[in-house]
Amino acid sequence: MARIEKLVIVGVGLIGGSFALALKEAGVVGRVVGVGRGASNIRRALELGIIDSGGSLDRETLKDADLVLLAVPVRQMPAVMRSMAPLLDSGTVVTDAGSTKQDVVELARREFKASLARFVPGHPIAGTEKSGAEAAFAALFRERKVVLTPLAENERGAIARVRAAWEQCGARVFEMQPQEHDAVLAAVSHLPHVLAFALVDLVAGSKDAERLFSFAAGGFRDFTRIASSSPEMWRDICLANREALLAELDRYRSELAAVRVLIESGDADGLRALFSRAREARERWLKGVE
Amino acid sequence: MARIEKLVIVGVGLIGGSFALALKEAGVVGRVVGVGRGASNIRRALELGIIDSGGSLDRETLKDADLVLLAVPVRQMPAVMRSMAPLLDSGTVVTDAGSTKQDVVELARREFKASLARFVPGHPIAGTEKSGAEAAFAALFRERKVVLTPLAENERGAIARVRAAWEQCGARVFEMQPQEHDAVLAAVSHLPHVLAFALVDLVAGSKDAERLFSFAAGGFRDFTRIASSSPEMWRDICLANREALLAELDRYRSELAAVRVLIESGDADGLRALFSRAREARERWLKGVE
Repeated sequence: MARIEKLVIVGVGLIGGSFALALKEAGVVGRVVGVGRGASNIRRALELGIIDSGGSLDRETLKDADLVLLAVPVRQMPAVMRSMAPLLDSGTVVTDAGSTKQDVVELARREFKASLARFVPGHPIAGTEKSGAEAAFAALFRERKVVLTPLAENERGAIARVRAAWEQCGARVFEMQPQEHDAVLAAVSHLPHVLAFALVDLVAGSKDAERLFSFAAGGFRDFTRIASSSPEMWRDICLANREALLAELDRYRSELAAVRVLIESGDADGLRALFSRAREARERWLKGVE
Repeated sequence: MARIEKLVIVGVGLIGGSFALALKEAGVVGRVVGVGRGASNIRRALELGIIDSGGSLDRETLKDADLVLLAVPVRQMPAVMRSMAPLLDSGTVVTDAGSTKQDVVELARREFKASLARFVPGHPIAGTEKSGAEAAFAALFRERKVVLTPLAENERGAIARVRAAWEQCGARVFEMQPQEHDAVLAAVSHLPHVLAFALVDLVAGSKDAERLFSFAAGGFRDFTRIASSSPEMWRDICLANREALLAELDRYRSELAAVRVLIESGDADGLRALFSRAREARERWLKGVE
């Protein structure tokens, strides 16, 4: 079993913290050093036993690290990569947990240069609407999917180390091209988030908003759960994956226009057919997931 | 405490069955007779102790009933009302559980005539994506809202009986005009259902549907839960509440067009502001609900 003597987590939030906890629980990690996300969050991460010490993006922290996980918001990625690039040992493998991959790959190519062979981009498809070290838990990645988008330049050993770490967290690891990843996530994650935010914003902006909310029930709560996600993170994702997201948004707008025609024209059969297709597809998906 | 010696449930599904179970649990009901929804469902309702006997829309079943709940799909409502109207005792109060109210009121005015004074339209804002007697449970309405849209013609005693029954189920009862009810529900229930069905249909219709679904996660599951609801019921709701729903759909399409502009123009501040407004509104709502 591959062991990580020294693990550095840059961004000890829900994702970074859960990664550390899962590897600790699996008993495959020696020491975990946490970087960034504010002094009080780092203190909390220490209290919760997520990390063993706090550090910063300096030579001391990165020295002899076997694995570094970048779990910071995409916006902070350029500065983080630039600071750490000259400080990395030749034995250190770096990965990230960013929700979009084309932009991260582009950044990495610009910033990492010499160490690019050991930067393996990744994205754990897991999370909750909560954030911060407080929200971290060891089981977050269990039975979840992690997508790696390895670079042509990557050393095979680097890919293997990242893959092994995620598997030790209980995740199933897949490989894709960055563009494929971003297109898939635009459809099943980024678009739904935008739709949920838009609906809540619409209701909240109505002149009788309070009354509307007061009669919203469980269906509305589930449908809008993802609208409680971090506004900063989702702003960044929308901009980082702009093209794929706009394409999905336009496909959705066409779908809505078609639904509108069915409703306006009173096409009972057409509506039932559409709703049935959707329900059956969702049920098939759920069966496959369970 | 108002007691219902004889309760007739027309449509012993999730709603009708749960109403019977809740009143039984509250100890305020004598005998429950179930009508319709197929012989096997009635058999199951008997086995589960939801109803005490099965009946049909005849004089024997309706004789001496204190309360009749119509919990059938809106499409079946005209035939049901027409059959029962001439058979109702002058002491029998009738209510319904339809998701839309303007159409039910219109139907009732046409079908009930003499007994209109004792037909009190209602809508329990509760449910799950499941259906049938099997899915019924006594706690379904606890702490949930029920909207009554009484008619000018209603006897005060009839309104009071229906209100008392729902309160005995643990629900909070509100009164509204039918049009108000339909506008509110269009915004916080009907529109979200249409949006969820549309998204799943879009993904299911993609050429790489299987791959897309395979990378969908918890956010997608929650967002689309309501797309597992009954296609027939939602077809009927969309058509029954067509005008209000189209108005909400058009407001949503404008909202999406505005979001699209923010994404395309790379307006980071605008996106963060919109997402923050939505998150804060949702959090305020959840606090108020708890």
